[in-house]
Amino acid sequence: MRSDQREVNELRNITIETDYVKHPEGSVLISFGDTKVICNASVEDRVPPFLRGQGKGWITAEYAMLPRATEQRNIRESSKGKVSGRTMEIQRLIGRALRAVVDLDKIGERTLWVDCDVIQADGGTRTASITGAFVAVVIAFGKLVEKGKIKQLPVNDFLTAISVGVLDNGKEILDLCYEEDSKAHVDMNVVMTGQGEFVELQGTGEEATFSMNQLQTMLSLAQQGVDELTTLQKEAIGKWAAVIESKQSSSVAGE
Amino acid sequence: MRSDQREVNELRNITIETDYVKHPEGSVLISFGDTKVICNASVEDRVPPFLRGQGKGWITAEYAMLPRATEQRNIRESSKGKVSGRTMEIQRLIGRALRAVVDLDKIGERTLWVDCDVIQADGGTRTASITGAFVAVVIAFGKLVEKGKIKQLPVNDFLTAISVGVLDNGKEILDLCYEEDSKAHVDMNVVMTGQGEFVELQGTGEEATFSMNQLQTMLSLAQQGVDELTTLQKEAIGKWAAVIESKQSSSVAGE
Amino acid sequence: MRSDQREVNELRNITIETDYVKHPEGSVLISFGDTKVICNASVEDRVPPFLRGQGKGWITAEYAMLPRATEQRNIRESSKGKVSGRTMEIQRLIGRALRAVVDLDKIGERTLWVDCDVIQADGGTRTASITGAFVAVVIAFGKLVEKGKIKQLPVNDFLTAISVGVLDNGKEILDLCYEEDSKAHVDMNVVMTGQGEFVELQGTGEEATFSMNQLQTMLSLAQQGVDELTTLQKEAIGKWAAVIESKQSSSVAGE
Amino acid sequence: MRSDQREVNELRNITIETDYVKHPEGSVLISFGDTKVICNASVEDRVPPFLRGQGKGWITAEYAMLPRATEQRNIRESSKGKVSGRTMEIQRLIGRALRAVVDLDKIGERTLWVDCDVIQADGGTRTASITGAFVAVVIAFGKLVEKGKIKQLPVNDFLTAISVGVLDNGKEILDLCYEEDSKAHVDMNVVMTGQGEFVELQGTGEEATFSMNQLQTMLSLAQQGVDELTTLQKEAIGKWAAVIESKQSSSVAGE
Amino acid sequence: MRSDQREVNELRNITIETDYVKHPEGSVLISFGDTKVICNASVEDRVPPFLRGQGKGWITAEYAMLPRATEQRNIRESSKGKVSGRTMEIQRLIGRALRAVVDLDKIGERTLWVDCDVIQADGGTRTASITGAFVAVVIAFGKLVEKGKIKQLPVNDFLTAISVGVLDNGKEILDLCYEEDSKAHVDMNVVMTGQGEFVELQGTGEEATFSMNQLQTMLSLAQQGVDELTTLQKEAIGKWAAVIESKQSSSVAGE
Amino acid sequence: MRSDQREVNELRNITIETDYVKHPEGSVLISFGDTKVICNASVEDRVPPFLRGQGKGWITAEYAMLPRATEQRNIRESSKGKVSGRTMEIQRLIGRALRAVVDLDKIGERTLWVDCDVIQADGGTRTASITGAFVAVVIAFGKLVEKGKIKQLPVNDFLTAISVGVLDNGKEILDLCYEEDSKAHVDMNVVMTGQGEFVELQGTGEEATFSMNQLQTMLSLAQQGVDELTTLQKEAIGKWAAVIESKQSSSVAGE
Repeated sequence: MRSDQREVNELRNITIETDYVKHPEGSVLISFGDTKVICNASVEDRVPPFLRGQGKGWITAEYAMLPRATEQRNIRESSKGKVSGRTMEIQRLIGRALRAVVDLDKIGERTLWVDCDVIQADGGTRTASITGAFVAVVIAFGKLVEKGKIKQLPVNDFLTAISVGVLDNGKEILDLCYEEDSKAHVDMNVVMTGQGEFVELQGTGEEATFSMNQLQTMLSLAQQGVDELTTLQKEAIGKWAAVIESKQSSSVAGE
Repeated sequence: MRSDQREVNELRNITIETDYVKHPEGSVLISFGDTKVICNASVEDRVPPFLRGQGKGWITAEYAMLPRATEQRNIRESSKGKVSGRTMEIQRLIGRALRAVVDLDKIGERTLWVDCDVIQADGGTRTASITGAFVAVVIAFGKLVEKGKIKQLPVNDFLTAISVGVLDNGKEILDLCYEEDSKAHVDMNVVMTGQGEFVELQGTGEEATFSMNQLQTMLSLAQQGVDELTTLQKEAIGKWAAVIESKQSSSVAGE
Repeated sequence: MRSDQREVNELRNITIETDYVKHPEGSVLISFGDTKVICNASVEDRVPPFLRGQGKGWITAEYAMLPRATEQRNIRESSKGKVSGRTMEIQRLIGRALRAVVDLDKIGERTLWVDCDVIQADGGTRTASITGAFVAVVIAFGKLVEKGKIKQLPVNDFLTAISVGVLDNGKEILDLCYEEDSKAHVDMNVVMTGQGEFVELQGTGEEATFSMNQLQTMLSLAQQGVDELTTLQKEAIGKWAAVIESKQSSSVAGE
Repeated sequence: MRSDQREVNELRNITIETDYVKHPEGSVLISFGDTKVICNASVEDRVPPFLRGQGKGWITAEYAMLPRATEQRNIRESSKGKVSGRTMEIQRLIGRALRAVVDLDKIGERTLWVDCDVIQADGGTRTASITGAFVAVVIAFGKLVEKGKIKQLPVNDFLTAISVGVLDNGKEILDLCYEEDSKAHVDMNVVMTGQGEFVELQGTGEEATFSMNQLQTMLSLAQQGVDELTTLQKEAIGKWAAVIESKQSSSVAGE
Repeated sequence: MRSDQREVNELRNITIETDYVKHPEGSVLISFGDTKVICNASVEDRVPPFLRGQGKGWITAEYAMLPRATEQRNIRESSKGKVSGRTMEIQRLIGRALRAVVDLDKIGERTLWVDCDVIQADGGTRTASITGAFVAVVIAFGKLVEKGKIKQLPVNDFLTAISVGVLDNGKEILDLCYEEDSKAHVDMNVVMTGQGEFVELQGTGEEATFSMNQLQTMLSLAQQGVDELTTLQKEAIGKWAAVIESKQSSSVAGE
Repeated sequence: MRSDQREVNELRNITIETDYVKHPEGSVLISFGDTKVICNASVEDRVPPFLRGQGKGWITAEYAMLPRATEQRNIRESSKGKVSGRTMEIQRLIGRALRAVVDLDKIGERTLWVDCDVIQADGGTRTASITGAFVAVVIAFGKLVEKGKIKQLPVNDFLTAISVGVLDNGKEILDLCYEEDSKAHVDMNVVMTGQGEFVELQGTGEEATFSMNQLQTMLSLAQQGVDELTTLQKEAIGKWAAVIESKQSSSVAGE
């Protein structure tokens, strides 16, 4: 039995609160149980040097935790003067994942900055960040559409992320909280589209290994989580959900 | 008339929400109008090297803003690899102010880390930080008292901070919002105890100067703001308010 | 057809040269086609602070490229004053993978530093690094055994890594060279033990996604590559191969 | 009685030596007793990016101490690789103060770099720096006037700074030396114009607080110090003193 | 007698392998006994800011050692976040030496980046680096000539470097290996042209001094080493040797 | 003829002012013409980690220039966050040179920090630094002797440094000022003992080379300069000169 009594395929309580902070074009507070992340999307009217003059845009993400988001206080990365390898891995993952479902050719020479700031951590901060960031990004692009700055929503599919793992008792589970994560033998993050395609798959044996069978079971659990998360995203983005769904169909048809 | 229709001596709507985040010993979300700051107090069971072996404790503060707390997104200080002069000034101020009302000899060899993270900024982030941090600190010390780790609340007085300034029309005002702050000729931050003693006074002419008369008017406005903020702090800290008030009396008596 | 005429499941020419540099306890030059990496394993007789006094050891890896290992010269990370996110990701991956097959409880309070320095790059530098680093590590541990510093080889299984991907024409392929990698829609690195268990799985859609079917095909290709690489490792480590094989059997028996 | 026998309202011996170093446009060695600061003003014919194209100029200040300016040797900030919070506070203060009395619209797109390097420290280095920097700045602008690069001296008033404080015996004093400063309960730096307007007011209780009465006494002492310092500045800048005095009158008239 | 039985004026075994790595315009692996350095020359079609628009080029060098090039593993400079003083001294020396024999006015607005990476160290890494770098530079310029990008080889003379020293027994020797170097009282690096002119002379007493007589003996040994090294360089660069020799003569004639 | 009318073997006006700053154990202001350097020697009662427990001491030097010591203002190294290669070279040279004439075994576990801060530069800052630093070091050690902390002056010989060079007209000269230095083809710094032994010899062709004959002429000029500088040092250190001279004799006798 899991430490918080959940079924192996049961997500924690997930909430997505939009318009959380007033300045950003898109702002979301997402909770995966006790994990809470502020996801802000900011539009900047220029692109990084390597893209200038090409008429296309860019999405970049940054991730951080408040020092006391965790049980033990962490030293600020600004005080240390450098960003940790863990932070870099996570923010590169978030940016890459978002770019997989956005049509960068359709947003002009703009950069979307996505800031995921964890204010409370209990496992799964990177999957919550991706899932919340997607909503913030859609809202930000929606504002650009409404202001006439871009013609249509440049988002091709939904994008959610969830963790799966193998506990020390050999049991595969969905959406690990911190207590589970710290004891798991295998930890896998799965980023998927609303249509069930993989965007990222990152599975790691923690001083352990895993078999093909365990991989299949974990992927099946992840699929279940992704379906639920996609439903919650649709509610959060309102009218824009239909726009994305219509793209999904044409995308399938046009394959 | 002020941009948000307030009287010259009128504070913005101030709220103090305690137990905002679950891990820290003291956690507060304070709002000064649209300025929102998470103030977390963390207890660490050791002191910096310069204090080791002296049997006394320390309080240190860190301050940061989320990148999109402001109207324009700011680059993260962790990405820049260094903390700005503005940030250093503010966090040194917060720490110094808190130490002025805490009896560091009574807390053992412990460090209280105070993290003030601005999630939304509209002027007055340093005064909101100090006012909120004081509440988080009292709650954190209260927990140490309740756990029997220290004998009594080591806090000698209330501590609040407020901004005053002189607008470009020469009018002195209390609690400047960002729009006012950006146009003010003089900007002054006043940190006071609950009994009306000064802890810090930082007045700055912004490519301008101010007279003794203007100083007196600003200090009078600040005193009014401080009284209101102290009342709100008392509500936020509940039973600990009476403990601090009893110290104030004895302190006055013993002067 | 592939740019270098290989079959989809065909590895490049792989060579492993041991004792490449004279000072390190284990030193290997590994080539995956035109990708050449020096993998040096150094034994240090102490562990990082977080492990002191626990009687166990640690393995940590560092990865770098000579500035002109690539077609365009890259600025040195020492000149930039910081290690890039890509470098951090790769060196964390190498260290984690090695730790999965080494019994850290059996090496005493020692750190094994593994340095993977790419002197020529043509795609697949991280998979060549892991595959070569494993050989250097076995040789280094072998010397500790021969000197009587540890009782037996603390290595539980072979460890190899290989890349698979999906080209822009939808074709799944094994062991991508740089030209293929730069055009691939999907890039996946698979780290496996000699017995076919997963250690790490990192699949990424590059502004694209991939299906469950494509995943299965890629994993099957990876398995073929891993078998060949394991055979080459056995040749490179000589007598130590039998020791590891004997552990594999007992490990299976004891499951 | 004070440690060096001064009256409470008595300045230390103050000297201002001009043309101290040969390269800078303005160069001053100022002494406040044993505190000695080289203040160099350098003219650069361009402005920082945020001001380009606006036809106005900028003044920026940097402050440092030689490692052995103090009783104990300090590590160089260049060796530490970063500037301390204390240094940042002081150099921001110096720059802000100078900008308050200079008409930046009248100096063209130029930056005045003011370097205050403390070669010997005995308390009051920031007030000596501001007082000396003002003289260096006037001399540098005077040269620009004489070379015909600007039409008139763009300086609206004199600018001096002095410290006041409250000793542990409750006594308010003027111009604290290091021994006094290290024992003071309150430390306040006052920056004023020649006409007695405030430019900056920074009062700090050092683990202590201060009352309104104490504030008034300190401000009165500061006023006395400022008058004497202004007289010394007039001697140091020679013919330019009259130019500034004539501006003061018109400034008062035009208020 | 020397630790490796060499005569006092005997070089170690020197080899120069060209085309060592495939991407750089010039690539050399040079060995001075057990000291092995990869010297890569890369052509970049622009110059540093201070040279732009002057129609001339630049040569800059970087030097590094693999962490385990030495008997004890060294921390990477990229991990430390800064380049050591020793590294800076060496790379400045290499660049300066190369620029002394190259006609920078004849290479257009190009920068030649020379990377000297020590993969195995046994003393004399800087002299091996300069001697090998010269060969890489000639090959790189040769390619520019062959591609018609520059008219003729812009190299005026050969350039070699060798170490000489005084052992603790007072004996002067040529080409110190690490064991000798660590015990030497005097260490001198001599950089010379093929015609026996000095380019750099850096002699250092290691907590010792040396006399004019010792200096003369060391310079004489250096001259012998330089002659042998020049011969090896001529073999390595093939047809370009004659071009440089023809310049030498005209240079002497034109003095 | 030289730009300042000096003979080829004529030093600039050299002055050495002792007790320049009050806190350091040894403090000197040395001038080589318009080059002025403050040399402070500070005694610290511990040694760097690599020397602990060996009963011997260490000397380390740091060098810096005030931003406007030069004709163009330089950015502070503390602002840049790193020390330049030039600075590192110079401070390593100063420390190494001083250590060559000090008996580190006789100073106990102490570090002598030598800070050379250039307040005005006109060429030859490193030779002025070494020559002045020697005086500061002798004075600092003299104080340790007088306080009874060490038994005798641990200085074996005088130590001076001077520059020589070859102008663009082929003429060898002594003690180059900045104007000469910027045009010289060869620049050589010679560090010698009072008895005429070499401590350091650093000769550099600036995009030029030099012959054995030129070297001999330069060394002869250097010897003349060193003799004069030694005489000035003797005056500056007063009674300690005789102590050092007595060591010189015994040193020669004991060779």
